[in-house]
Amino acid sequence: MSKPIIFGEIEGFQEGHLFKNRQEIMDSNLHRTLQAGIDGNIKEGASVIILSGGYEDDVDNGNEIIYTGAGGNDSNTKKQIEDQSWSNRSNAALLVSMDQGLAVRVIRGEKHKSLYSPKEGYKYAGLYSVVDAWEEIGKSGFKVCRFLLRYSGSQLTDNLFQEFNSKQQKIRKETVILRIVRDTKIAVEIKKLYDFKCQICNISIPTKSGHYAEGAHIKPLGMPHDGEDSIDNILCLCPNHHVMFDKGTFSILDNYELIGHENGILFIHKNHKIKPSNLQYHRKAHGYE
Amino acid sequence: MSKPIIFGEIEGFQEGHLFKNRQEIMDSNLHRTLQAGIDGNIKEGASVIILSGGYEDDVDNGNEIIYTGAGGNDSNTKKQIEDQSWSNRSNAALLVSMDQGLAVRVIRGEKHKSLYSPKEGYKYAGLYSVVDAWEEIGKSGFKVCRFLLRYSGSQLTDNLFQEFNSKQQKIRKETVILRIVRDTKIAVEIKKLYDFKCQICNISIPTKSGHYAEGAHIKPLGMPHDGEDSIDNILCLCPNHHVMFDKGTFSILDNYELIGHENGILFIHKNHKIKPSNLQYHRKAHGYE
Repeated sequence: MSKPIIFGEIEGFQEGHLFKNRQEIMDSNLHRTLQAGIDGNIKEGASVIILSGGYEDDVDNGNEIIYTGAGGNDSNTKKQIEDQSWSNRSNAALLVSMDQGLAVRVIRGEKHKSLYSPKEGYKYAGLYSVVDAWEEIGKSGFKVCRFLLRYSGSQLTDNLFQEFNSKQQKIRKETVILRIVRDTKIAVEIKKLYDFKCQICNISIPTKSGHYAEGAHIKPLGMPHDGEDSIDNILCLCPNHHVMFDKGTFSILDNYELIGHENGILFIHKNHKIKPSNLQYHRKAHGYE
Repeated sequence: MSKPIIFGEIEGFQEGHLFKNRQEIMDSNLHRTLQAGIDGNIKEGASVIILSGGYEDDVDNGNEIIYTGAGGNDSNTKKQIEDQSWSNRSNAALLVSMDQGLAVRVIRGEKHKSLYSPKEGYKYAGLYSVVDAWEEIGKSGFKVCRFLLRYSGSQLTDNLFQEFNSKQQKIRKETVILRIVRDTKIAVEIKKLYDFKCQICNISIPTKSGHYAEGAHIKPLGMPHDGEDSIDNILCLCPNHHVMFDKGTFSILDNYELIGHENGILFIHKNHKIKPSNLQYHRKAHGYE
């Protein structure tokens, strides 16, 4: 595999694109191999999965897919003959995609049992997010690693909130959204620079696949603040300090001393230059100057 | 004000409902007073705001509203003559709604300058969430408290993700959703029971208006887990421990001892009975039994 892994959309291939076979998919760069279901690795995450009917436990409701991880099956009969493991390369790659909020391309093959599968060949279904991972005993009697993938592609507005099916409308109605944590490609870079350690408390949140942190925009993105999605406007924070920073419980001086927080100073990597005007915007917005 | 405050939808009054005047609104229970813009208090939060052109700094894009808080204006001229304050009762109530994820009813009056205002009287616009709060210098030259309200009512699927306007489509496309933190009415009760302190680390996240915590469902809501939204299935956690719990970094034994976590035991209030089968579900899902 000499080609670099590419995350997200691939230019020239829109949702619904049909491929005759795996060779065509490989030529498109959507998936770099001819055989594996998942393309990815434990360091960078998974970029694509191909659903091709290989597992008996998959569920596919269109916008939501329960995907059974890799490993444990006999190479000849394809039947599961032992427990799956989270340290399996493919499963670990999907965990990284979950923890870093990386979009995963989904492709359905003709053999995948679903209303959304193509009659022939393979069909690109767009980008999905890995939103949950758990284990259970599969139909085979062995442990399987399962992932909940939710559609997050270009038709997002119509689809994202259909996660609760009709039976659960009541719960859906009683549910409020407390917080949406967004992240960007650039935020992922900043988090890697700090090895997922919070720039306030130096803690990183351990997960099955590594560590979790959040990219916090100093001057917020979106209306009305219109902050930039650039390295000089992003911090790597743990969820607790992200909440506090967004709510203005504390702010940061140009010399990186903290205001409104007992700990003294922001950890700063030598390659991380923050724009003072962004810090000033945050201080003003939360009454620190 | 003898009537109790009611949050969320009021039966019999759908989005688009027209009211002739404030008296009709008061009779409907959508807003309990004749004069105030906000109905609420610092303890329970704000249940409704009426946009009636009182402030010169309001912005209304339909799904997103920038609402200027209360206080600081002359009672005769209505002009702002001094700084607004976060401790103002109405502003503090909106902060509580933000931190607890409470839905706020929005009503537009004929005098409110917006494409969405009714020609006559008042129009109920549905439920909104308070997603951001900051201060700035208003047109008057004095400090104003501002709130970003985002539509979260029954037409949510179409509207929620229009937060970035067309100029920002590029950023929108590069943004991934890392985490959506949901909460329910019952979760709010549990958080109050624990005074917003995390049941693992006993920390509560300080904010301008009080404290922030998250309700964590032990057996998750929604497909495929179908956990119940009931007190015996919810924990009060800080964001850090919520992430770790959801990702299975630790789990909890029936005697409330923690597995996979250095601290020993879950704090439990005597009135909080957790169903052991929910704990068992979490342990199984994350490989602890």
